Amino acid sequence: MRVLGVDPGLTRCGVGVVEGVAGRPLTMLGVGVVRTPADAELGQRLVAVEQGIERWLDEHRPEFVAVERVFSQHNVRTVMGTAQASAVAMLCAARRGIPVALHTPSEVKAAVTGSGRADKAQVGAMVTRLLRLDAPPKPADAADALALAICHIWRAPAQNRLQQAVALHTAKAAPKGRLA
Amino acid sequence: MRVLGVDPGLTRCGVGVVEGVAGRPLTMLGVGVVRTPADAELGQRLVAVEQGIERWLDEHRPEFVAVERVFSQHNVRTVMGTAQASAVAMLCAARRGIPVALHTPSEVKAAVTGSGRADKAQVGAMVTRLLRLDAPPKPADAADALALAICHIWRAPAQNRLQQAVALHTAKAAPKGRLA
Repeated sequence: MRVLGVDPGLTRCGVGVVEGVAGRPLTMLGVGVVRTPADAELGQRLVAVEQGIERWLDEHRPEFVAVERVFSQHNVRTVMGTAQASAVAMLCAARRGIPVALHTPSEVKAAVTGSGRADKAQVGAMVTRLLRLDAPPKPADAADALALAICHIWRAPAQNRLQQAVALHTAKAAPKGRLA
Repeated sequence: MRVLGVDPGLTRCGVGVVEGVAGRPLTMLGVGVVRTPADAELGQRLVAVEQGIERWLDEHRPEFVAVERVFSQHNVRTVMGTAQASAVAMLCAARRGIPVALHTPSEVKAAVTGSGRADKAQVGAMVTRLLRLDAPPKPADAADALALAICHIWRAPAQNRLQQAVALHTAKAAPKGRLA
């Protein structure tokens, strides 16, 4: 299972590719940041994000793309740019037929550190350990992107089991075979 | 001057094309709504918005795209979808090298009705009158997209004059020729 994690942002969009399955050691295939100049026009910045994400998709051919779910409760000044960059990342993946999963920051933190309220340093330390790196990836956006990919690999089996259980339950609840 | 106005939204994205110059009667070249199913995955909905906007750009070849500026103070439940749809519209335009302008809802209302706090009905009535239509365009998102295009045509000369004045002032304030 190869996952591209995307920590969306207009100034710095973290990207990281992780391969592996739950319960086995994971491998980092790449990590980086797509940057766009803060003084460029918004449309041009979105085009630059698109070109950056496309390059990562071309190079690593991920089977899944995991994007941080953006909440509007966040910092009012940055949330719009984050939502717009995440839209571009989701668009690039969906255009290629790659499934997109959204994970909240606390789901990601809980997945890699055991606590949904872990700080950046703790996430960076666990990403370094889980991927057997020499040092935490810099900047934090890059480490967060890897954490998103790890979170997706670890949560996917549970989500699949949950979906199967729901499907089974729905099939049982509709004995006339409408959904079976 | 031919402008595509976009009232961004995931469920209904209003689009309208207006041609003309400030101080002269305006002509509507097209109006409509790009819709995406609420039960589709977010990535797929963004792809559908992209395809819809691309069709409008192909057909009408606008020189400018005017998009409603999204504020995060709005309804928390819908603002993310609005920001994401607007990102796709801006991306489509910028990718073709078409300048993108953002106008706030109150700028648009003030431009077409004289009041930044006008209601939907008043905006619809003025769009109908200014474009010499038989009836207000439905739904309101379509009328809003036309209002955005009209706003851009009317504001553009003032914005250009302002930019020229700023450029002149900057040039005067830098007599050593650094910016001249």
